Amino acid sequence: MSVQAVVIASSTDTHADLIVAAANAGKAVFCEKPVDLSVARSRECAEVVRRRGITCMIGFQRRFDPTFAALKARVERGDIGAPEMLVVTSRDPGAPPVDYIRSSGGIFKDMLIHDFDVFRWILGDEAQTLHATGSCLTDPAVRDAGDLDSTAVTIRTRRGLLCQINTSRRAAYGYDQRFELLGSKGMLQAGNVRPTEVTAWSANGIATDVPEPFFLERYRHAYAAEIAHFVDALRDGTPVRTTIDDGLAALELAEAAMTSWQTGRVIEV
Amino acid sequence: MSVQAVVIASSTDTHADLIVAAANAGKAVFCEKPVDLSVARSRECAEVVRRRGITCMIGFQRRFDPTFAALKARVERGDIGAPEMLVVTSRDPGAPPVDYIRSSGGIFKDMLIHDFDVFRWILGDEAQTLHATGSCLTDPAVRDAGDLDSTAVTIRTRRGLLCQINTSRRAAYGYDQRFELLGSKGMLQAGNVRPTEVTAWSANGIATDVPEPFFLERYRHAYAAEIAHFVDALRDGTPVRTTIDDGLAALELAEAAMTSWQTGRVIEV
Amino acid sequence: MSVQAVVIASSTDTHADLIVAAANAGKAVFCEKPVDLSVARSRECAEVVRRRGITCMIGFQRRFDPTFAALKARVERGDIGAPEMLVVTSRDPGAPPVDYIRSSGGIFKDMLIHDFDVFRWILGDEAQTLHATGSCLTDPAVRDAGDLDSTAVTIRTRRGLLCQINTSRRAAYGYDQRFELLGSKGMLQAGNVRPTEVTAWSANGIATDVPEPFFLERYRHAYAAEIAHFVDALRDGTPVRTTIDDGLAALELAEAAMTSWQTGRVIEV
Amino acid sequence: MSVQAVVIASSTDTHADLIVAAANAGKAVFCEKPVDLSVARSRECAEVVRRRGITCMIGFQRRFDPTFAALKARVERGDIGAPEMLVVTSRDPGAPPVDYIRSSGGIFKDMLIHDFDVFRWILGDEAQTLHATGSCLTDPAVRDAGDLDSTAVTIRTRRGLLCQINTSRRAAYGYDQRFELLGSKGMLQAGNVRPTEVTAWSANGIATDVPEPFFLERYRHAYAAEIAHFVDALRDGTPVRTTIDDGLAALELAEAAMTSWQTGRVIEV
Repeated sequence: MSVQAVVIASSTDTHADLIVAAANAGKAVFCEKPVDLSVARSRECAEVVRRRGITCMIGFQRRFDPTFAALKARVERGDIGAPEMLVVTSRDPGAPPVDYIRSSGGIFKDMLIHDFDVFRWILGDEAQTLHATGSCLTDPAVRDAGDLDSTAVTIRTRRGLLCQINTSRRAAYGYDQRFELLGSKGMLQAGNVRPTEVTAWSANGIATDVPEPFFLERYRHAYAAEIAHFVDALRDGTPVRTTIDDGLAALELAEAAMTSWQTGRVIEV
Repeated sequence: MSVQAVVIASSTDTHADLIVAAANAGKAVFCEKPVDLSVARSRECAEVVRRRGITCMIGFQRRFDPTFAALKARVERGDIGAPEMLVVTSRDPGAPPVDYIRSSGGIFKDMLIHDFDVFRWILGDEAQTLHATGSCLTDPAVRDAGDLDSTAVTIRTRRGLLCQINTSRRAAYGYDQRFELLGSKGMLQAGNVRPTEVTAWSANGIATDVPEPFFLERYRHAYAAEIAHFVDALRDGTPVRTTIDDGLAALELAEAAMTSWQTGRVIEV
Repeated sequence: MSVQAVVIASSTDTHADLIVAAANAGKAVFCEKPVDLSVARSRECAEVVRRRGITCMIGFQRRFDPTFAALKARVERGDIGAPEMLVVTSRDPGAPPVDYIRSSGGIFKDMLIHDFDVFRWILGDEAQTLHATGSCLTDPAVRDAGDLDSTAVTIRTRRGLLCQINTSRRAAYGYDQRFELLGSKGMLQAGNVRPTEVTAWSANGIATDVPEPFFLERYRHAYAAEIAHFVDALRDGTPVRTTIDDGLAALELAEAAMTSWQTGRVIEV
Repeated sequence: MSVQAVVIASSTDTHADLIVAAANAGKAVFCEKPVDLSVARSRECAEVVRRRGITCMIGFQRRFDPTFAALKARVERGDIGAPEMLVVTSRDPGAPPVDYIRSSGGIFKDMLIHDFDVFRWILGDEAQTLHATGSCLTDPAVRDAGDLDSTAVTIRTRRGLLCQINTSRRAAYGYDQRFELLGSKGMLQAGNVRPTEVTAWSANGIATDVPEPFFLERYRHAYAAEIAHFVDALRDGTPVRTTIDDGLAALELAEAAMTSWQTGRVIEV
């Protein structure tokens, strides 16, 4: 039986070539983010995909997380009226090895690219201006590698909606993935997932579990759901929910954030 | 390849015969609770199992629930000192059909048998006295079938530990499975599992999800873990954690509860 | 200006004489619970109060606690339909001195009398049967004084509603005062009050404050509200919400609990 | 007896003159924020205060809120190691009358001035760069008055710490005053205060109370504590915790925010 689809989960610098090769062979593609660290190269890729008419899904698994997806569904059915302000908290439990950081493209393209995708998905709007700043507060080795470990990003959309993203490479208490969305009629929060529902009462406080330790645990249902969605879409001939254009848009925001940080200026996207 | 083990998930009145048949054939058995509605018949079964030396695991899946198991592990490592008092809340979202209730053996043998097993497992002690009372508050059809839908049970153990169990056939908000254990140095609670971690803030309050709708959802991880435990035990030749003796002990408590309710007296177990 | 009302906050053994003296002098009375440790003497007192037609309020301050009162108000407006089952958790942070315990009348009259009043107030019904058991698990000195430190009480009301009360003289994490009420359409919980709304996230868990340390802190608003209610009632000529009959009814339940524990039998109230 | 201290709680445009008059008379002053809408005029005021050597406390009551103060105390004793990132959520339940807005000096001086003070107090550092943006999303009348109702501010301090502030004039669920502080060893959150600790379980979710309705309720303990602190400081000759210099510093941040928003640029403070 011939190959119908290709799943690309190799290192980032191989993504673009593999996507193009698969597209030219007429195969559907599922590719982990990012398309490429270069915006220009990513655009070329997207152009090939468009020309060849293949399905190309980018692995923004957060859209398939049960909690995030439930929040999005409630927004769409009008639970909180018109969305106005999104606050994204996105913190890793610890920094990856410096070698990884050096080839990662920097925190904005490596880590915040997921948050930029969440921003576009949840608010359903595009950035008009973007401001990013950051610091290196956890480990001097990160600074020496030319990167940040703590960032604060603000986006204002075309319709005037606001989004703030705060990230850190180190949360001593685990993998922290939350956001809240204020709307005209209320507010929705998406919280962390805990391993168990045990609560311990002692003289030191009343304590629940810390969040799941890292992304493999936090998003295990999401990873399963996104690949099932890819297969379903191919089988049914329906569109995938996270396209190469979404990959490109998130990367452009990451590029804008890097520029904002480097120049100290607000970027018109 | 010959049969090594038998899984019995048929209707309750077939359990005992099937266990005996499997035992006589030298097969290991996994059987859903209860062994039988009759204590005498259950004892005969346990005797056959003992004589034949087969492994016979009873499906008390709650012991394999991640939250319940984590609480038990914390108790065992001494987090709350010596256990003193257990409060079990166990409420179904709605009553089963009256036909089912008629052949169920009554709420104590059908529903509380799980709570009696949790009591023995968590406190690690046996009942000395038991008091049970109850009412029919949700549906007259339950009363007409000679059963209760709301019960309150109190057990005092041989070492003087206390346990209160409250149950209802109807919790308008879903399947409610919680308990809390007070110890000399603190307290542990095992809470419900929620489908998502969305919190909705509106003028009406700040609301999280209701619990999982019923036992199939609440205990899906537990069901998978218990059957895996059964297979592991057979493969490794290690003992199973919920034996036919556990099944018998829980049934005896259910029988005592029924007697207590019928006579209005405290039962010496 | 002459005395209009008398507040009795002296030791328990003086209450009855002082109430009678005040009643005979035609003064309104506010008296801390209990009226007396003897049911017979309390009845005599209530009879004098009735004959003299004075206002006599008993200090069941929990009815004036903002959280408890809000729960009661929601029940009355029908939020959870018909009440069915009440679970009361009532735990002190530590046992009082043994000297106090010796003259306290025992845990049922000293500590649970508040819980018996809560039961009557929240369910709006009277006990038909009562079962009480208990143990001495915290300090042998309590046993030597002839008392219990851990109790489990079950009440079934005339209408068939159920109530379970669990108490302990020692909760390592503070003063624990909660209850939950299941109704035909939902459930209401009354939780503890915390000193602050700080939550601490660390590798050890996500912890909120422990409850207020003891009754003076937990019920400080309630104490102020109950005495204000007494003054308002006198000024406006309206009835007080916790009468000497309420005091008598709670004491009778405490007496029944003591008898149940001593005889090991279920008591018809 | 002569006047020792003056409390100024009149309209904003009278603050500066009254402070100067009191200072020249040698009286201690407690003045509600802000000192003045003009930074220059506020500096003059501060100069007079300094020259006259009087005590001048500015009413930043949030520093006296029990929850906020407890969080600050925990930071100071090292609970979360070195502070790194502060996220402030500050939302009013509804916009004030447009007439008030017109003379308010704008949202940054009227509303965020409190958040700027919280930022300085909690992080114990001063702003180096500040970016502010915002929108008018709730009511066109606010825009017509030349103001914003939704803002997003980011501050980077001299030591490189990060702070994000998100505000709205309208939170449908009540007065929302929270912040969280990430440190090298953990995280602390300061949450809202609820009127009661009732939790309602229904088919629609498990709901706690909404926050206190507005600042008079939320900060009633803080208002009492700050004025008590003022009196204590005068009596004991100790310094006040919120000086006119704090008032000036917060106003300068508000001015910087206004400039950032108007010019679309990042401001060096």
